[in-house]
Amino acid sequence: MGTYNMETPISPPYKVGIPPKQKLWKEFSSTLKETFFADDPLRSFKDQSKSRKLILGLRAVFPILDWARSYDLAKLKGDLIAGLTIASLCIPQDIGYSKLANLDPQYGLYSSFVPPLVYAFMGSSRDIAIGPVAVVSLLLGTMLQEEIDPVSNAYEYRRLAFTATLFAGITQATLGILRLGFLIDFLSHAAIVGFMGGAAITIALQQLKGFLGIKKFTKNADIVSVMKSVFSSAHHGWNWPTILIGSSFLVFLLVAKYIGKKNKKLFWVSAIAPLISVILSTFFVYITRADKEGVQIVRHIEKGINSPSLDQIYFSGEYLLKGARIGIVAGMVALTEAVAIGRTFAAMKDYQIDGNKEMVALGVMNIAGSMTSCYVATGSFSRSAVNFMAGCQTAVSNIVMSIVVLLTLLFITPLFEYTPNAILSAIIISAVISLIDYDAAILIWKIDKFDFVACMGAFLGVVFVSVEIGLLVAVSISFAKLLLQVTRPRTALLGKIPRTNVYRNISQYPEATKVPGVLIIRVDSAIYFSNSNYIRERLLRWLTDEDEQLKAASLPEIQFLVVEMSPVTDIDTSGIHALEDLHKSLQKKSVQLVLANPGPVVIDKLYASKLANLIGEDRIFLTVADAIQNCSPKFVDDV
Amino acid sequence: MGTYNMETPISPPYKVGIPPKQKLWKEFSSTLKETFFADDPLRSFKDQSKSRKLILGLRAVFPILDWARSYDLAKLKGDLIAGLTIASLCIPQDIGYSKLANLDPQYGLYSSFVPPLVYAFMGSSRDIAIGPVAVVSLLLGTMLQEEIDPVSNAYEYRRLAFTATLFAGITQATLGILRLGFLIDFLSHAAIVGFMGGAAITIALQQLKGFLGIKKFTKNADIVSVMKSVFSSAHHGWNWPTILIGSSFLVFLLVAKYIGKKNKKLFWVSAIAPLISVILSTFFVYITRADKEGVQIVRHIEKGINSPSLDQIYFSGEYLLKGARIGIVAGMVALTEAVAIGRTFAAMKDYQIDGNKEMVALGVMNIAGSMTSCYVATGSFSRSAVNFMAGCQTAVSNIVMSIVVLLTLLFITPLFEYTPNAILSAIIISAVISLIDYDAAILIWKIDKFDFVACMGAFLGVVFVSVEIGLLVAVSISFAKLLLQVTRPRTALLGKIPRTNVYRNISQYPEATKVPGVLIIRVDSAIYFSNSNYIRERLLRWLTDEDEQLKAASLPEIQFLVVEMSPVTDIDTSGIHALEDLHKSLQKKSVQLVLANPGPVVIDKLYASKLANLIGEDRIFLTVADAIQNCSPKFVDDV
Repeated sequence: MGTYNMETPISPPYKVGIPPKQKLWKEFSSTLKETFFADDPLRSFKDQSKSRKLILGLRAVFPILDWARSYDLAKLKGDLIAGLTIASLCIPQDIGYSKLANLDPQYGLYSSFVPPLVYAFMGSSRDIAIGPVAVVSLLLGTMLQEEIDPVSNAYEYRRLAFTATLFAGITQATLGILRLGFLIDFLSHAAIVGFMGGAAITIALQQLKGFLGIKKFTKNADIVSVMKSVFSSAHHGWNWPTILIGSSFLVFLLVAKYIGKKNKKLFWVSAIAPLISVILSTFFVYITRADKEGVQIVRHIEKGINSPSLDQIYFSGEYLLKGARIGIVAGMVALTEAVAIGRTFAAMKDYQIDGNKEMVALGVMNIAGSMTSCYVATGSFSRSAVNFMAGCQTAVSNIVMSIVVLLTLLFITPLFEYTPNAILSAIIISAVISLIDYDAAILIWKIDKFDFVACMGAFLGVVFVSVEIGLLVAVSISFAKLLLQVTRPRTALLGKIPRTNVYRNISQYPEATKVPGVLIIRVDSAIYFSNSNYIRERLLRWLTDEDEQLKAASLPEIQFLVVEMSPVTDIDTSGIHALEDLHKSLQKKSVQLVLANPGPVVIDKLYASKLANLIGEDRIFLTVADAIQNCSPKFVDDV
Repeated sequence: MGTYNMETPISPPYKVGIPPKQKLWKEFSSTLKETFFADDPLRSFKDQSKSRKLILGLRAVFPILDWARSYDLAKLKGDLIAGLTIASLCIPQDIGYSKLANLDPQYGLYSSFVPPLVYAFMGSSRDIAIGPVAVVSLLLGTMLQEEIDPVSNAYEYRRLAFTATLFAGITQATLGILRLGFLIDFLSHAAIVGFMGGAAITIALQQLKGFLGIKKFTKNADIVSVMKSVFSSAHHGWNWPTILIGSSFLVFLLVAKYIGKKNKKLFWVSAIAPLISVILSTFFVYITRADKEGVQIVRHIEKGINSPSLDQIYFSGEYLLKGARIGIVAGMVALTEAVAIGRTFAAMKDYQIDGNKEMVALGVMNIAGSMTSCYVATGSFSRSAVNFMAGCQTAVSNIVMSIVVLLTLLFITPLFEYTPNAILSAIIISAVISLIDYDAAILIWKIDKFDFVACMGAFLGVVFVSVEIGLLVAVSISFAKLLLQVTRPRTALLGKIPRTNVYRNISQYPEATKVPGVLIIRVDSAIYFSNSNYIRERLLRWLTDEDEQLKAASLPEIQFLVVEMSPVTDIDTSGIHALEDLHKSLQKKSVQLVLANPGPVVIDKLYASKLANLIGEDRIFLTVADAIQNCSPKFVDDV
């Protein structure tokens, strides 16, 4: 920073620039472009021949056409290992998660067969692992059972599940095609952390049923009902052999997880631990016939691949609407999870993910899933991380996983007959535990208290009421925060920083000094109808407060109010009216309104509304320093 | 502006200030205070004795205690003239407006008797004229008749009207007491202009019934239904004597209005024209017995003052909820109108209006009204303007008006028997015409195209569908605008303005020059979850675009990305994560991230999240100029 040269003769102030007038259509189209095509998706299509455009278009829809050409044996090796690893992880998880959705175990496996295949052709993430996930399974299960009882009306329940899956897919694809992907940004990071943590605890609590071998269990998912169920069945409902098997394998799984976390090279220990647990415990139960002691087992998984389910989807009647509502909610949540995963790993490997294209891929995959007996699939946090660490190179790892699941469905499902439910519960508990992100919550507390409120609101909403209410709380608090920002923007008193001609917030730079007779206030927001009255009143209050202080100290009164407008990026008609009213009020008090550094949009509107002429063009400056130099109060001679 | 002195030796950059850590409670309470007590209402209570506080408190609730002490004969004279003038205007208007609300004529007069009296004691505006207004009457009438038929179930309809009035009052008072007055700011100026214009046209069209003497008329208020009604009755339903009387007096009223507008001193011509029209036309019909020719007349207005109506309010059953819903909507609209009027005239005479206190006054007045056979009253635009021009000094003019209305109710209502409905229609048409504010709409078009869309949306919604839909459209568009602002903020490419060390938007100052090897981008918004991904991607796109251009021109690549953060007033956890991701992406491209002028909140959070250390404290500067001087690219020696 060059020190300010006091000897420089006062030069005429630099004129505030008025940007060249834009054509209405151009202005409109550029706003439209920034809103919906911010990522400029057609960039590569520019100046290309027609046939080339077709090829580029196909490649845009099916990224596989793009990367398959440079696919080689080295990549295949990585994908093969990663694919096998995530398959070993997903098979027991799928069986468990389908229970969260109140569906038979094979539906979880189905959902790990078709959707990953579709995604491999259309998706742009190289690291995501597709399949059923805990949170979406729980959400779907909770919302579906409110409409249809999954036990007494299993067939109708399944039909509604496919209907919801179809609409989840349609929602996702539509958001992508209409380029409304930014809508999922409205679920803030903090809200997601809270929501995920709450869902993890809810899911873990639900597992107490299988884990303790309780037969009569509440249908509600909130912590109060669940704990009541658990304790009321403590005397006669708990099955001790089940608890023994469950807890020993849970310890095994948690130790394996810990090892994988401590030593990144041993990640495969935690990855194959679930499958090993299933194999060992199944063998153990088969040998000891512990199922006769009351240890609940999986019993039967339908053999064979997915059957078509298009004819089971409700295309009319009341369940069409209900399915649509459930599908939209589940689809949005699934989308949020998948996009977050895609972005995280893309940033790690430094490649670009097109959010909207990704949504179309996920949407098509779920639409295809709904027609082949699958329920909502998305990217799984835990399996994607394993996929990444196992060295996956492309979406081929999903194809490998899909083939393994296919083989499982065709040949080895009967082997799961004696698998104890307690093991599936243990696997789910050890999987969802990592969704509880203490560190993130602590960081959120440190950075932003309001975000923490949103985070805890979502968490408590999920734990004490339901996943839906938790979501609603999170979204509401996030919106309230945005509205608060546009309703009550900050204003700051500026002072001159010593040895410079820079003016900054006095509360940030206590050494900054006020200029006698001049009050400099910065307005920290666009001036819109929602805050224009507040800003006008707040500026007048700054003036009153300052004048009171000056009067108390017998100092000369304020003669100039300099409003620093650098942060004022836009102003609307209400804002213009507020400034006009402010100007009038100040005139009555013999205070001159001075504007510093209005941006292009603001200066344009100041002239359009003739307010610039009313205030005086010679009262609008490029910088605060310019304003101060040209607005010296009359009683000060030596400034 | 001092020119930048090139010979100054490079001094160490000025350190960016970290504001002193605030206590959590203090931070929280100051946010709370700015949100709900921005106007610092307890300021005058500070450092006062207990008895003095009581007096101040009473005066705060009843401003009449404040101004009555300095009331004198001169003021009384002004108020007397103003009160008589607005009384002459309000009596015919009241009779007409009560028809818009589907109520008998006396209810309009009742509502000009009790509410103004209550307001005179509690209100803080000196110029507002209280009573029924056209837009609220129409809104109430439309919403009420959707629930109960006003002809066949007149008694139940009236009960629901009082219930709605009670809830309108409760809504208003509650908003004021909870200091949520800022909520009405969410109805933007533009939306109000459109809504009022649309309502005026709808009301004028409704008057065609009385004006043309049509007997069979649609109940719908949209333009299509009304025009169908009018034209289908053209052959036999129009009554020519009625049209003759109506149009001749409408011409008279419009001429009087024009005179009052052209010559401010003759405002009284337009003010008493309605009463003169009523007297003349009533006399004419009485003499000629034109009612026998099919000219519809008022026939009967109940004599006597308001009867108590507390026992008629629905305090249970389905109509309680319906009344509450209608009351809340009508109360909010009434509030918007009253507060806008209060602010306008307060600004003209330079006194302060406390919005929240004003709402309590309006609320109490409507609660009292609902118990004394009144329907929703509020401030009337046209009558308040007349009140102001007639020289009102205090709310005493409302008391004078109220007394005149009382006398009218007691003694002269029978004289209105022969008043033709066509005259009332003409009076309403001439009154609402001034609600159509072309000039404001044109100004809105000039200043802000998005505002214009909100304005036209509200206008067309009211005219073509209904007042409710118009309101909904206006509020939705206004919200969409706010959300767009927080979702897609602007970013600007900065350049150095010649002969200064000031960096500004190149599109506003085309003469500004880029610094070789450095890209300077300003982010024009707080960075929140709703825009953090967009901002990160947008910054990277600026970089890619610039690098492409440089490559095409064989110029050296960008080595520094300077992000000017002056307008970034806040950042949340999502924003911090986005900056962190940006930093990582830039590192992969060997571009150094540099921050200029982070504000107090932002710098605080940068340190709390350790991001400041990650980026490097020596990469955060007070100004862009500082950043440029300390981040000269390696290949440039002479900068």
